[in-house]
Amino acid sequence: MQIDFKNMISPVEGADRITWAEVEALKKRGEAIDADLRARRGRGDLPFHDLPYQDVTSVLKYAEEARGRFENFVVAGIGGSALGNIALQTALRHPHHNLLPEAQRGGPRMFFPDNIDPDMVGGLFDVLDPKETLFNVITKSGSTAETMSTFLLVRQALIDAVGDRWREHVVVTTDPAKGDLRQIATEEGLTAFDIPEGVGGRFSVLTPVGLLSAAVSGIDIQVLLSGAAAMDARLKASALDRNPAYVCAALMYLADAHKGRRIVVMMPYVQALRDVADWFRQLWAESLGKRLSLAGEVVHVGQTPVKALGATDQHSQMQLYVEGPHDKVVVFLAVERYDRTLIFPAAYGEKASLGYFSGRTMNELIQAERVATALALTQRQRPNMTITLPEVSPQTVGQLLYLLEVQTLYAGGLYGVDPLDQPGVEAGKVATYALMGRKGYEQQRVEILREIASDARYLL
Amino acid sequence: MQIDFKNMISPVEGADRITWAEVEALKKRGEAIDADLRARRGRGDLPFHDLPYQDVTSVLKYAEEARGRFENFVVAGIGGSALGNIALQTALRHPHHNLLPEAQRGGPRMFFPDNIDPDMVGGLFDVLDPKETLFNVITKSGSTAETMSTFLLVRQALIDAVGDRWREHVVVTTDPAKGDLRQIATEEGLTAFDIPEGVGGRFSVLTPVGLLSAAVSGIDIQVLLSGAAAMDARLKASALDRNPAYVCAALMYLADAHKGRRIVVMMPYVQALRDVADWFRQLWAESLGKRLSLAGEVVHVGQTPVKALGATDQHSQMQLYVEGPHDKVVVFLAVERYDRTLIFPAAYGEKASLGYFSGRTMNELIQAERVATALALTQRQRPNMTITLPEVSPQTVGQLLYLLEVQTLYAGGLYGVDPLDQPGVEAGKVATYALMGRKGYEQQRVEILREIASDARYLL
Repeated sequence: MQIDFKNMISPVEGADRITWAEVEALKKRGEAIDADLRARRGRGDLPFHDLPYQDVTSVLKYAEEARGRFENFVVAGIGGSALGNIALQTALRHPHHNLLPEAQRGGPRMFFPDNIDPDMVGGLFDVLDPKETLFNVITKSGSTAETMSTFLLVRQALIDAVGDRWREHVVVTTDPAKGDLRQIATEEGLTAFDIPEGVGGRFSVLTPVGLLSAAVSGIDIQVLLSGAAAMDARLKASALDRNPAYVCAALMYLADAHKGRRIVVMMPYVQALRDVADWFRQLWAESLGKRLSLAGEVVHVGQTPVKALGATDQHSQMQLYVEGPHDKVVVFLAVERYDRTLIFPAAYGEKASLGYFSGRTMNELIQAERVATALALTQRQRPNMTITLPEVSPQTVGQLLYLLEVQTLYAGGLYGVDPLDQPGVEAGKVATYALMGRKGYEQQRVEILREIASDARYLL
Repeated sequence: MQIDFKNMISPVEGADRITWAEVEALKKRGEAIDADLRARRGRGDLPFHDLPYQDVTSVLKYAEEARGRFENFVVAGIGGSALGNIALQTALRHPHHNLLPEAQRGGPRMFFPDNIDPDMVGGLFDVLDPKETLFNVITKSGSTAETMSTFLLVRQALIDAVGDRWREHVVVTTDPAKGDLRQIATEEGLTAFDIPEGVGGRFSVLTPVGLLSAAVSGIDIQVLLSGAAAMDARLKASALDRNPAYVCAALMYLADAHKGRRIVVMMPYVQALRDVADWFRQLWAESLGKRLSLAGEVVHVGQTPVKALGATDQHSQMQLYVEGPHDKVVVFLAVERYDRTLIFPAAYGEKASLGYFSGRTMNELIQAERVATALALTQRQRPNMTITLPEVSPQTVGQLLYLLEVQTLYAGGLYGVDPLDQPGVEAGKVATYALMGRKGYEQQRVEILREIASDARYLL
């Protein structure tokens, strides 16, 4: 994996892009952050670092059996309990997996209904037969409202279809000891996988949260983990100013804090990596978007991650990126080799818009468009960088996900915030409980109903 | 359709949200913009306004025949030639349309491969038989590189499958007179639909660009247009300060220009409207993201549109929206009624995280979460507003799309830019031609290859 950040750096002092001198001036802080992260890892406080080395025998065994037994596999999870699963599926399986004939698919059809829209959830049951379906209910806390309420519907649909044997159609992934879902699993005798303690949702893709669905779908999770381990080795062995995780974090931080680049656009020119950009969106937003610094000061920091897709979004967002406010950094994801090569046939050679394709490939076209887009941004003083994978494979995706996780930890250090908490979502949960009439929230309910009353002046 | 913008407005003077006095102070400019837009419409310079009243007989006739004849319908288009099609399909057809049995689907399977990724395009041909497929090639200019190159591959696949009869498997939508695709259609005798002159890509959803695929999929396009006409009537009849298109534009503009809210998040709490947010993303970004004002001054304006999805993104982006920088406005899309009602069965009533669901509905839960999220944002002084549709139907979606288009024109006026051009994407096209070795670009090619050479100092 290669990272080219030439277009992030201005060769001369200037207002628009950062200079290498600014990166070097940050080095002392970077070293302190690095020492702190290493110490915490040494103490076992950052257990996500250990995930590449875990034993996945039980996941593989269960997945292998499920692959033969079920026509459909459904992940009931949301946020960190779905985004990694979706990213792996999109990256490493066929773009039309669920439409392939069973023999070509080699495993169940895969569904990830990560929302509580009644039409979406109801629509799912139009296309799958519960009798032929395994449901993986995933929630770290064991009490997530969206997931637990979906579980109630799933369970009832299964009981209606197969009676007491519903228990064979549910596998849960949750905290090893705590929470309602763990308790239910124990009481009902459901198969359960553990999310290791100390690994938060957005860092959990390489736990059974992401690994079980990946293995069921036919992804080689051992190679995925070996990719993460390879990146771990590379990061450990690198001097700080050659450490991709640190350097990327420093570039993003400086672009934001010094140059007002409050938005980071992750733009794969690889359809398969599109949902990696979505997974990153949670990782970066939830880890760095914070009101308080570690020192307790009100800071309101956090770069806003945006997902885009090349070449598609050249026809949607590029006008803004090239000409709009100087408030963005673009991170391109590229591959050296796509799996397929599509050669353009010779036809209409006399037409200006077609003649130049003859004998060239679609692969060359998308690569040319990526390079051209990076150049157009650079010429307008818009910083951008490119992460190039040799190809999309379990090995390289494992590397990429692990890199981005570690980068996020360094960024947390640079912003001076805790990248592992999410205190800002509590208020919304309480208001939801109050509005749903949950016991103990009666007083809040009265206040909330008053606050949300509409005002005719501001209603059209 | 109801728009509640109470949470955009601060009841007292304050730093974080705009006041109603600021909206009123803008009225004079708003009236001048409104007069200008009405005059231009009167002169026939804004022909997208006429689309709700067009005759769609020929589209309906062709679509009806195609529905019976083909198993698959593929749109080959990108940007404005795909985003509207996808938005309509997601909004108005079953969430798993392509997995439904043919009888329930009632029409062809629908595909929108709006990219040139070789694995994605190649993968498409794994799941469809060209013999059973109709391809709709859409490009306004008739020369878009991605679409025309895809056309070459599609044409070859068809020739391989059905020989000379390939012409019956292609329908084009393009300029009535100009461009290579129009010329090819004429020479080859392909069925062709017109994109009316003066209607740009991002305003073309209600031309045959969006209407043909919608009709083939089984959407009632006459009702869709009548929805747009109803919104047109509402906007024409409203006083400016009660005109939803103008008021929404003014709120966004003031939030950005006066309060530094450079990002607008469109967040449907309706899975079906998720790709309307993506369509809006092009509309807003490409229309307003501009280097030059109409007066020729360098301004670099444009609010960055971000798509989010409720309730899903509460578990991904909400931490940042609630605690991060004060740089966002959130526009919620809501519905009064979903098509289905899902009642939670009573089970595990003694468990705190489950008991309160008993007898309640998933519909109530997602509505409660939306209201709770809006409240949480408002309590942190984060401006937000809610557009509520009575339901998702061709009528209401037609209204919504038309509203957002007109809002974008008003916003163009307020920002003082031309919302109908996109001068910033030219440089990237030229560089692509040069890199692909197109004739006439040899000199640029030499320069570009020099500029893009990597630098070992900035390579990891």
